[in-house]
Amino acid sequence: MKTLIKNGLVVSSTGRQPADVLIDGETIAAVLAPGSVLLGFDIEQNVDVVIDAAGKYVIPGGIDAHTHMSLPFGGTAASDTFETGTRAAAWGGTTTIIDFAVQTFGQRLEDGLAKWHSMAEGECAIDYGFHQIVGDVNDESLRALRGLVDQGITSFKLFMAYPGVFYSDDAQVLRAMQVSADTGMLTMMHAENGPAIDVLVQQLLAEGKTDPYYHGIARAWQLEEEATHRAIMLADLTGAPLYVVHVSARQAVEQLAAARDRGRNVFGETCPQYLYLSLEDNLGAPGFEGAKWVCSTPLRSKHEGHQDYLWQSLRTNDLQLVSTDHCPFCMKGQKELGLGDFSKIPNGIGSIEHRMDLLYQGVVEGRISLERWVEITSTTPARMFGLYGRKGVIAPGADADIVVYDPNGHTSIGYNKTHHMNMDYSAWEGYEIDGHVDTVLARGKRVIDGGQYLGAKGDGRFLRRDLSQYLI
Amino acid sequence: MKTLIKNGLVVSSTGRQPADVLIDGETIAAVLAPGSVLLGFDIEQNVDVVIDAAGKYVIPGGIDAHTHMSLPFGGTAASDTFETGTRAAAWGGTTTIIDFAVQTFGQRLEDGLAKWHSMAEGECAIDYGFHQIVGDVNDESLRALRGLVDQGITSFKLFMAYPGVFYSDDAQVLRAMQVSADTGMLTMMHAENGPAIDVLVQQLLAEGKTDPYYHGIARAWQLEEEATHRAIMLADLTGAPLYVVHVSARQAVEQLAAARDRGRNVFGETCPQYLYLSLEDNLGAPGFEGAKWVCSTPLRSKHEGHQDYLWQSLRTNDLQLVSTDHCPFCMKGQKELGLGDFSKIPNGIGSIEHRMDLLYQGVVEGRISLERWVEITSTTPARMFGLYGRKGVIAPGADADIVVYDPNGHTSIGYNKTHHMNMDYSAWEGYEIDGHVDTVLARGKRVIDGGQYLGAKGDGRFLRRDLSQYLI
Amino acid sequence: MKTLIKNGLVVSSTGRQPADVLIDGETIAAVLAPGSVLLGFDIEQNVDVVIDAAGKYVIPGGIDAHTHMSLPFGGTAASDTFETGTRAAAWGGTTTIIDFAVQTFGQRLEDGLAKWHSMAEGECAIDYGFHQIVGDVNDESLRALRGLVDQGITSFKLFMAYPGVFYSDDAQVLRAMQVSADTGMLTMMHAENGPAIDVLVQQLLAEGKTDPYYHGIARAWQLEEEATHRAIMLADLTGAPLYVVHVSARQAVEQLAAARDRGRNVFGETCPQYLYLSLEDNLGAPGFEGAKWVCSTPLRSKHEGHQDYLWQSLRTNDLQLVSTDHCPFCMKGQKELGLGDFSKIPNGIGSIEHRMDLLYQGVVEGRISLERWVEITSTTPARMFGLYGRKGVIAPGADADIVVYDPNGHTSIGYNKTHHMNMDYSAWEGYEIDGHVDTVLARGKRVIDGGQYLGAKGDGRFLRRDLSQYLI
Amino acid sequence: MKTLIKNGLVVSSTGRQPADVLIDGETIAAVLAPGSVLLGFDIEQNVDVVIDAAGKYVIPGGIDAHTHMSLPFGGTAASDTFETGTRAAAWGGTTTIIDFAVQTFGQRLEDGLAKWHSMAEGECAIDYGFHQIVGDVNDESLRALRGLVDQGITSFKLFMAYPGVFYSDDAQVLRAMQVSADTGMLTMMHAENGPAIDVLVQQLLAEGKTDPYYHGIARAWQLEEEATHRAIMLADLTGAPLYVVHVSARQAVEQLAAARDRGRNVFGETCPQYLYLSLEDNLGAPGFEGAKWVCSTPLRSKHEGHQDYLWQSLRTNDLQLVSTDHCPFCMKGQKELGLGDFSKIPNGIGSIEHRMDLLYQGVVEGRISLERWVEITSTTPARMFGLYGRKGVIAPGADADIVVYDPNGHTSIGYNKTHHMNMDYSAWEGYEIDGHVDTVLARGKRVIDGGQYLGAKGDGRFLRRDLSQYLI
Repeated sequence: MKTLIKNGLVVSSTGRQPADVLIDGETIAAVLAPGSVLLGFDIEQNVDVVIDAAGKYVIPGGIDAHTHMSLPFGGTAASDTFETGTRAAAWGGTTTIIDFAVQTFGQRLEDGLAKWHSMAEGECAIDYGFHQIVGDVNDESLRALRGLVDQGITSFKLFMAYPGVFYSDDAQVLRAMQVSADTGMLTMMHAENGPAIDVLVQQLLAEGKTDPYYHGIARAWQLEEEATHRAIMLADLTGAPLYVVHVSARQAVEQLAAARDRGRNVFGETCPQYLYLSLEDNLGAPGFEGAKWVCSTPLRSKHEGHQDYLWQSLRTNDLQLVSTDHCPFCMKGQKELGLGDFSKIPNGIGSIEHRMDLLYQGVVEGRISLERWVEITSTTPARMFGLYGRKGVIAPGADADIVVYDPNGHTSIGYNKTHHMNMDYSAWEGYEIDGHVDTVLARGKRVIDGGQYLGAKGDGRFLRRDLSQYLI
Repeated sequence: MKTLIKNGLVVSSTGRQPADVLIDGETIAAVLAPGSVLLGFDIEQNVDVVIDAAGKYVIPGGIDAHTHMSLPFGGTAASDTFETGTRAAAWGGTTTIIDFAVQTFGQRLEDGLAKWHSMAEGECAIDYGFHQIVGDVNDESLRALRGLVDQGITSFKLFMAYPGVFYSDDAQVLRAMQVSADTGMLTMMHAENGPAIDVLVQQLLAEGKTDPYYHGIARAWQLEEEATHRAIMLADLTGAPLYVVHVSARQAVEQLAAARDRGRNVFGETCPQYLYLSLEDNLGAPGFEGAKWVCSTPLRSKHEGHQDYLWQSLRTNDLQLVSTDHCPFCMKGQKELGLGDFSKIPNGIGSIEHRMDLLYQGVVEGRISLERWVEITSTTPARMFGLYGRKGVIAPGADADIVVYDPNGHTSIGYNKTHHMNMDYSAWEGYEIDGHVDTVLARGKRVIDGGQYLGAKGDGRFLRRDLSQYLI
Repeated sequence: MKTLIKNGLVVSSTGRQPADVLIDGETIAAVLAPGSVLLGFDIEQNVDVVIDAAGKYVIPGGIDAHTHMSLPFGGTAASDTFETGTRAAAWGGTTTIIDFAVQTFGQRLEDGLAKWHSMAEGECAIDYGFHQIVGDVNDESLRALRGLVDQGITSFKLFMAYPGVFYSDDAQVLRAMQVSADTGMLTMMHAENGPAIDVLVQQLLAEGKTDPYYHGIARAWQLEEEATHRAIMLADLTGAPLYVVHVSARQAVEQLAAARDRGRNVFGETCPQYLYLSLEDNLGAPGFEGAKWVCSTPLRSKHEGHQDYLWQSLRTNDLQLVSTDHCPFCMKGQKELGLGDFSKIPNGIGSIEHRMDLLYQGVVEGRISLERWVEITSTTPARMFGLYGRKGVIAPGADADIVVYDPNGHTSIGYNKTHHMNMDYSAWEGYEIDGHVDTVLARGKRVIDGGQYLGAKGDGRFLRRDLSQYLI
Repeated sequence: MKTLIKNGLVVSSTGRQPADVLIDGETIAAVLAPGSVLLGFDIEQNVDVVIDAAGKYVIPGGIDAHTHMSLPFGGTAASDTFETGTRAAAWGGTTTIIDFAVQTFGQRLEDGLAKWHSMAEGECAIDYGFHQIVGDVNDESLRALRGLVDQGITSFKLFMAYPGVFYSDDAQVLRAMQVSADTGMLTMMHAENGPAIDVLVQQLLAEGKTDPYYHGIARAWQLEEEATHRAIMLADLTGAPLYVVHVSARQAVEQLAAARDRGRNVFGETCPQYLYLSLEDNLGAPGFEGAKWVCSTPLRSKHEGHQDYLWQSLRTNDLQLVSTDHCPFCMKGQKELGLGDFSKIPNGIGSIEHRMDLLYQGVVEGRISLERWVEITSTTPARMFGLYGRKGVIAPGADADIVVYDPNGHTSIGYNKTHHMNMDYSAWEGYEIDGHVDTVLARGKRVIDGGQYLGAKGDGRFLRRDLSQYLI
């Protein structure tokens, strides 16, 4: 199958250029000056499919580097499977995900990974990779961890929160970071002081403060800032490259920025929810409604300047990229587990379908440049996680993961409008986007076109990733 | 003329990709997957010239955003003309310069610019643009300055040093920055506290401290840091985007970094001399030898950590790019003017020929990545100064300014070796580079190939630049 | 004359102690355990006067280190003379002032000083010292400046504002600071970027923005922060100890704090007006009313957090003391000069009578401790300006400058209430203080007692000061 | 007993004044102008003892706020008892100690405290107070902790180091800090990341790195900085006032300074060993010699600028005071426990006898002022720990704890010279001090005079302390 995308404006992380893109099979064969007649050879006459992108942006497909399909949590599991979640991703212009394989406490790391391979294989609409969650740091799991590089898994996550579940104490963090420094694997960190949070949770519940709102109170920004700094210093000591996930507090970003000003390989992602939603407006919604937005780190107060600072940090590269931390739960039967006890509400928000749109709205509103949009949603995730060359760029040889995005289109987000995630509500109800994902190609195949999903379960393949290409 | 560069590794600011590059006339027609057979059409058979770049890097031509051809200074003039200087640039893999047109005190700004146009036109080996030096800020010059945007001159430089010559006081800086904020033109700043420096100069001379070394003592880092901060605050007040030239002091970079951490459009360049040379080893060379390295800002002490910090700042993007501040003077008859009085030594070092090589050595030594090399020498200069799309990138539609760089080659820098600048010494004598500029194309024409200069005076054209494409 | 102050609580900068104070003549003879019977000797029976301070604080008399009696400014002169101003000071519990002798441009420094001596001698109600304003830095004035140490004048002030009046450019500042470093004299700095301010002033007036409010707009915090940093760096370069006067902007304090974190002898004062009044509420009062509060640095916006930060900085010793910058002008005939042109309003506020009360209210409101009140109003001013031992402390041998302050008293500030400054309005109208200056002794003489002024013109003597006792 | 100290120079934290001090019984009756004739009454004729302090400093007795008499540690116990340790203190001019009562894991807090009372009562040469170590934070111990304020114990210490011994995890720290915030008790913190240190210790031992030197390697500055920041953030969250003990790393002080710049009640002490001794010269001494200086936090590298920064921080009040952390062990039978395994060396250095002298040497060498010496050794410890008024000041009503210090005397420190601590070596062998403790009075009684110890076991009484008088 040969496809020509013509007349579009190709946008990269550094600039924009009118150009045509020729796809041969699964990869990009050439990027050409508009017109597509090369030394007299008329390319358009020699392809199977022509997509006219006039007036539209041609961008590398989105890479969502933080998803949790089917993640078991609090006695239930995230409601999107690899099948439903990756299909929704495709609808939203995301053509690659990196999900988290989970080693639970007491489990062999290899067994956890094997389970995730079996859950994903043959199910995905788009390509996928894995980070490894290390839920039980010990001699054996660290040995297994070292072996993952050769399997294309080049990053792992630790938790400074959730004692008794995923939690690693500082001794464990230190030992895992030593592996990171030795192998070049990227240490990813959930940076919240879990033991301190759990004290506050119990105290709040004891005082009868059981509403979803108190989830945000218990997980104070001080405890995110603290854990972020702690992770940075342990990384400093060991030499491990560090990537902090779902950063929501201004002060945590300041710690990351300070570390980078000292020349450290310290990075951070934020998520759409921290850029738009807040403690007061969402977690504090009447009754149990706030449960829809219970996630960790939590939504922050709108009176403390976090959102503006996060946007600014995306501009200044104090934050490097935006992922979703996609981890949806239905209200019915899932979020409801926490009625009368916010600590029992499964943690997670579903955004995989809307990340590209929500961030494009940041372009419309002058928060970030068009180029930076491409960079934080695709190019940097590819570089950060060792996929660049295949993913994250429109260049010959790269996988033909391409989105044609229409700046004159419009997208109304809502449960009864366009919603393909397996949830019974939308966390983004009512958001209006001044743009639209028109056409999505995944490895050369049109998977979204004309408002139709044309892909199939199993289109997506497992990605063996290289070491990070972003380290300095 | 149709040219194919095949088998090379195309390196951009974000990554590297094996690809062939097809040039049709002056611009790039296509970037292709290696092999150059497109849908059965054999490109190699249809071109005039094939350059085999196997084992070599194919990069966008260097952009030196800070040069001073024929600059009058201290009763003499920089020894490289547009002809000799741009030819030397081409030898070194630089295919674009941005020189500074000068309005002197009392002169109409338009007249200064016209003079520079006449000096450059028909003389250059490579394309050139102009920044405008505003040496006399007043109502009339500010009016003229606003008009330059339409002439493709979108940046101007002010001096906080050199009272009585180029100096603007803070009132003048403020007024010019207001024009910058209004028009979007970039304010470039020579940030040193000139009035304070001149006191120290006179005191040193009065004490009989007349050697070149004292040039570095008089221009203390505190006075660079101070002026940098002052420029930042005036930019903060007016909203002007700010670019600080030839940053040499660690503490000045810290001020830039702090401003960016606050989300400001504040940028900085450094120069090769600050990355490699020092107060003690060079300015402090025996006798009058140190005059070779008299430039302002001055070389800094090697005991204060400046060099390591500058390299780090290039990695962390606290400094955005590297220019040369190319402003050569011969020892004979020029630098000698300052025998017995360091303040009379013409300020300037010649590096235009060696910038690409000297920074590539930073790649070899693990100081910066290959991608960052391309970014700080070409892609960011293009974006910063409104040339991106035409320059700074290998993409269809862009000018075919391309360097084939050989990582297995070698370059020995020295006056009697390869030296094409119009100077009677080399400031870089003895530097050995583990790489080599093989082939240089300027707008599609091979100007350096096989150790020969194949270009001609007048090949280079004036570039009308857009506003900066780098602002956040 | 022998006086015993009994039963009071003696408050120092470090603590409070019930103690009696015995005064013999002009100095303190002893501080005694309450009861005043010493080894059987009954002191009370052997003194002339007994003051019962039961339930009251006994504190060292206030030292106002920044006043401008009769200062010529903008074609008029400050309305308080040494006679009226020092008498008002005494009413308010201040027993020492340090006023500024002025060298104007073109004048011999000695002549300026001589004039101030003649204006003050025999006029003052309380002791007084001088700082020297150097309004024309040149070889001769710097020579004269060095000689002042022996005359008991150990600090001098420079202005980075008011070009054409008091302004020193950076070359002049540098040269004067070299004298400061050599002699140990303290450099005091009015830190605002005058040349930049003057541009904004002219632009505002040209736009018809002539109200007092625009005085605050023209003198933007960026221009205070900038000048503060510049002064710090010039001090860093020369080694001069630096004291920044009338600090009003949060960001300026941050610069001071950063310098002290680097171990520098850099200090700052603020004034009551910056702790209580604001751009919006005062400068922005309807009509020409705002003229009452035109002073420089200006009152700052209440929306930017300056006031809270200034109070905090007083707590943390990032600011060391509080002076008034007392420089009163009447509305009638003086402030009115600026009707229709804010730049012609004489700069200054009268507060000398209320400083002790206004800051005591900070104690009542929990802003500062009782001890810190004594420290920032008396002990530190004494140490900073070389008066400690004689002034600033209740200890044997010290001058008996003592205030009995009643925490159960009350003071209503207002023009028609208690107002002894020579002004036709009060800048502090309506302020209510939960405390009261009961009795004031100046060198052993009761000058305020029972609501009466008992002192006389000429009571106060010139103080020869030592070098600063506060340097680290 | 009535005593007059005449002709001395009384030095306080703010200045110095020639004055006589009259002592009646245990307290100071009066501070008098020199001459001691008061209104005709000749005091000298009416006292029992006259001490002539001509040419000498008269200062408030030293307060050592951090000692560990008889502390059980690593299977042995600190070699100084309350009897021997406090006597050595008196020899060195220290007249008050605050020791740490210990609750061990599993023990009732009250029982731990009772044991310390019984160990100290009737044994001490000088007055003593207690901080409470909380080695087992739980509901019951926290309840007991609240009750200590009424018993005059107003500060407690937690350990972020020593897992399995004194360690509190972050949940426990948070809960204890809540008590601190509620009651006003001061939280004292041993700030080192114990779990991480223990990993490094085990790894070093496994590599055969068993010498005392590696004690310093395992306890890297990053782990002190990290824990310091963590403690600050937990204090920020709870509102607890925080005091970090034995700070040795520059970077930890920077964290303290940053917190104070934000207005927090965060304080720090350092100890003489960190001001003078180093990793290389002491811990790294040949063979097992380094064991003499094994303490935690450890001595730091002399190549990283810690010492200069600690001295600077004492000047700028970024550190508030100096204690000894006196915890001596003999080499024989005690330190030797760690032969072949540095982790088994009992942690501690004996300095109680030399603190006043070692810091006075800082005055001689221009590191701190005479006044600051008094402040950091006596006045601030008194204020910090609620003793001011009784202790820390020479003022009527205060306990007559007074040292007559001779700046013309000399002290040679050495085991065979003057050494009264119960150790078989001196950690300060060879240090020469340009000053000498002449006479020491403890509550009015001469305990050191004429090179004799005149005091007795049991002279010292338990001090019920108030809440901190230093909070802002």
